[in-house]
Amino acid sequence: MAQKPSIPKGTRDFNPVEAARRNYIFDTIRSVFKQFGYAPIETPAMENLSTLLGKYGEEGDKLLFKILNSGNSFAPVSGLVPDNPDEKDSAALSLKVCEKGLRYDLTVPFARFVVQHQNELVFPFKRYQLQPVWRADRPQKGRYREFYQCDADVIGSDSMYNELEMAQLVDSVFSKFGIRVLLKINNRKVLSGIAGIMGCPGQIIDITVAIDKLDKTSLEAVKEELYEKGISAQAVAVLEPLLLFQGNSGQKIAFLRSLFEGGASEIGMEGVRELETLFELIDKTGVSQEVELDLSLARGLNYYTGAIFEVKSLDFSIGSICGGGRYDDLTGIFGLKDMSGVGISFGADRIYDVLLGLDRFPPEVQDAPVVLFFNMGESESVRALRYIKSLRDSGIAAELYPDPAKMKKQFDYASRRGIAFAAIIGETELAEGTVTVKNLVTGEQETIGSGQLLNKFGM
Amino acid sequence: MAQKPSIPKGTRDFNPVEAARRNYIFDTIRSVFKQFGYAPIETPAMENLSTLLGKYGEEGDKLLFKILNSGNSFAPVSGLVPDNPDEKDSAALSLKVCEKGLRYDLTVPFARFVVQHQNELVFPFKRYQLQPVWRADRPQKGRYREFYQCDADVIGSDSMYNELEMAQLVDSVFSKFGIRVLLKINNRKVLSGIAGIMGCPGQIIDITVAIDKLDKTSLEAVKEELYEKGISAQAVAVLEPLLLFQGNSGQKIAFLRSLFEGGASEIGMEGVRELETLFELIDKTGVSQEVELDLSLARGLNYYTGAIFEVKSLDFSIGSICGGGRYDDLTGIFGLKDMSGVGISFGADRIYDVLLGLDRFPPEVQDAPVVLFFNMGESESVRALRYIKSLRDSGIAAELYPDPAKMKKQFDYASRRGIAFAAIIGETELAEGTVTVKNLVTGEQETIGSGQLLNKFGM
Repeated sequence: MAQKPSIPKGTRDFNPVEAARRNYIFDTIRSVFKQFGYAPIETPAMENLSTLLGKYGEEGDKLLFKILNSGNSFAPVSGLVPDNPDEKDSAALSLKVCEKGLRYDLTVPFARFVVQHQNELVFPFKRYQLQPVWRADRPQKGRYREFYQCDADVIGSDSMYNELEMAQLVDSVFSKFGIRVLLKINNRKVLSGIAGIMGCPGQIIDITVAIDKLDKTSLEAVKEELYEKGISAQAVAVLEPLLLFQGNSGQKIAFLRSLFEGGASEIGMEGVRELETLFELIDKTGVSQEVELDLSLARGLNYYTGAIFEVKSLDFSIGSICGGGRYDDLTGIFGLKDMSGVGISFGADRIYDVLLGLDRFPPEVQDAPVVLFFNMGESESVRALRYIKSLRDSGIAAELYPDPAKMKKQFDYASRRGIAFAAIIGETELAEGTVTVKNLVTGEQETIGSGQLLNKFGM
Repeated sequence: MAQKPSIPKGTRDFNPVEAARRNYIFDTIRSVFKQFGYAPIETPAMENLSTLLGKYGEEGDKLLFKILNSGNSFAPVSGLVPDNPDEKDSAALSLKVCEKGLRYDLTVPFARFVVQHQNELVFPFKRYQLQPVWRADRPQKGRYREFYQCDADVIGSDSMYNELEMAQLVDSVFSKFGIRVLLKINNRKVLSGIAGIMGCPGQIIDITVAIDKLDKTSLEAVKEELYEKGISAQAVAVLEPLLLFQGNSGQKIAFLRSLFEGGASEIGMEGVRELETLFELIDKTGVSQEVELDLSLARGLNYYTGAIFEVKSLDFSIGSICGGGRYDDLTGIFGLKDMSGVGISFGADRIYDVLLGLDRFPPEVQDAPVVLFFNMGESESVRALRYIKSLRDSGIAAELYPDPAKMKKQFDYASRRGIAFAAIIGETELAEGTVTVKNLVTGEQETIGSGQLLNKFGM
């Protein structure tokens, strides 16, 4: 009996129109990465669980998709399954029958790649990577269990020109897409400095996690969370004016300097100097999109150590569409120390939603052929195929309707696929070496010599 | 303590040179598919196991990678794991803790997609799909657990123009790659006819599986296998002259006709007529690569019902690099009857090996930037970044070395990455608005005005 087909929850099929639009997004991002000198790499979908576990926090470990070992997988657990296994038992047992997992992001596999192939690579190593990742998150609107990441990283250089390059990448990619964005910049060292002058340097993670929520919730809620983490009202009183400070990026930097200088926070001052350098470079070289220093920007990922970035669409509300930052020790866990790097990740799914919402997909992104030759019988079709071949050789997508169906059916097919022209070779055209071409948008029709076909479609 | 990083056996990392070459292969195949009017789709890496199981034979079921359910996966097996579970227990238990698997090929997900989305699709539906697939095969040279398939299919038309189109796709793709190939064609109905006149029509699968091995083994070994399957010496004696028949495709067709006509095999005659039509169409429309009828071509996959194809490189020995065929009931298992289709799959990994072995990768496929601007200090770098921006805007890949390192280090970086030109802006050049450009291949060096940069690199 036939099954009713479906796909796992949180995953998606992409139909021709969606897939063509996605290819446009990937191709655009890839072309910018290439222009900037980034080289492509690919890593396998499956990594050893030992590579992935412990890299994304306790919550992340639970969100890894684990792959059952092949063969007699259950031999190692025989006699070990308790009568009512709880989640903890389950997690332990899963490690006995699973050695591999699907990658959770591209950053940890990249770190693993750099360490494993360090002797073949040229440093600073600039790589880009466009591949899917998988997370066993609860599916909900806009959150999927399989989605693409589009990452560019430079590793092996601590120059601030790399941070500048991230800003330029953001500028180029979104300008190519025709989207106006705001690039928000902050610095982890500044956040450390703030934790320091608040008197709770050990709670930098609690503080960043809380203030990271500022754009989704209220200041009151953030303060509440900080109190719950045991941070004193006095400490929060030091933080609050910073979060509320109004002014341009230069004024914010000056305010930070006044807080940190004179020995108040060494690390804070270092962050201030980095921000100053970066904003100066941005000023001098010019970035056409809006850029601002946002002291409430924290980013949840804890491997960042310097500059952090996040990008929002100015005209479409959807949250962050791109983010990244500087990390000083990404590869340390795999045994390669002192490799500072900076990276950025473009969120293809949200960019898709923005482009769709703002109607910015170029109309030619449909991927439909330019012309359909009608099937009017064998001799006519053989002639049509000769013309089709020369059109294709000139890069013009063309096809023959495969069956000698009624004209109406062939017209329907062409219009439903969004094909621009119908080309008809009937008895007369066959005898005279001509083709009747109908523009399916305007309805205009003319009979032309076969030698004019290329001109007709070769825009 | 640092782990020594590695990846699961049978999987691969691709370094920048390899990844750029793979992108060249994918882009070339994709561009031909698009010229032929095929539209892209994407399906998820994970499918429900109910979609995959039973579609690839018993052996195939074992080769599926299964994904552990999230959460408390082992609750359903508590108390069920026997003391010494054997492989059969293991397979049964795995279904209790796994509902999803990684796709094994693109054909079954395509059939599932067509049935699931039948009301949104335009038939005949021409789709292409370039995605990875996973198989828990024993890894060995040239056989991987993760590899890409590049498929094009037309479904919803039984016209022989579709078979012709497959031959044209093969022709276009391999001509673009600059590889000479042999396209071998056969027909499953002819094979059924042969099984019929051998007197064992029920053993068509045994017969095709055996003769499919003819190009890897000897005629004697194939005969031995047929005897083992219980096929009589008399029946094999009918088959043997067919496998040994020498002659061009037309002579082979005539020979088949003489065997099947006069009521000897209806289905065989149908196959002969299909072959005749296809070879006639190929003759009339012209295919530049070699094409031949190969009666020993069987292809293992049992969903084929008409024409079957296989492609071999003429100049590099590696087995089949592309294959496909006609199937009359691929979607039946998912509840959609009478959907005849024909499809073809290009093997990216083997094509890679052929292109590498024959040295046919275009030299520009390295994906290195054209020019590296040296970092000679801040003012010089800011100037360089302005030039770099205008080069990138013109589509020329360019980058700044991020650190003000010694010249030698910057030269080393450029040459190891395969960058063609070094551009140097020192104090003099900064003052005069010039750039010193060195060709890193020829060693030639000249100082040019910044206005000439585009000309210099804009080939």
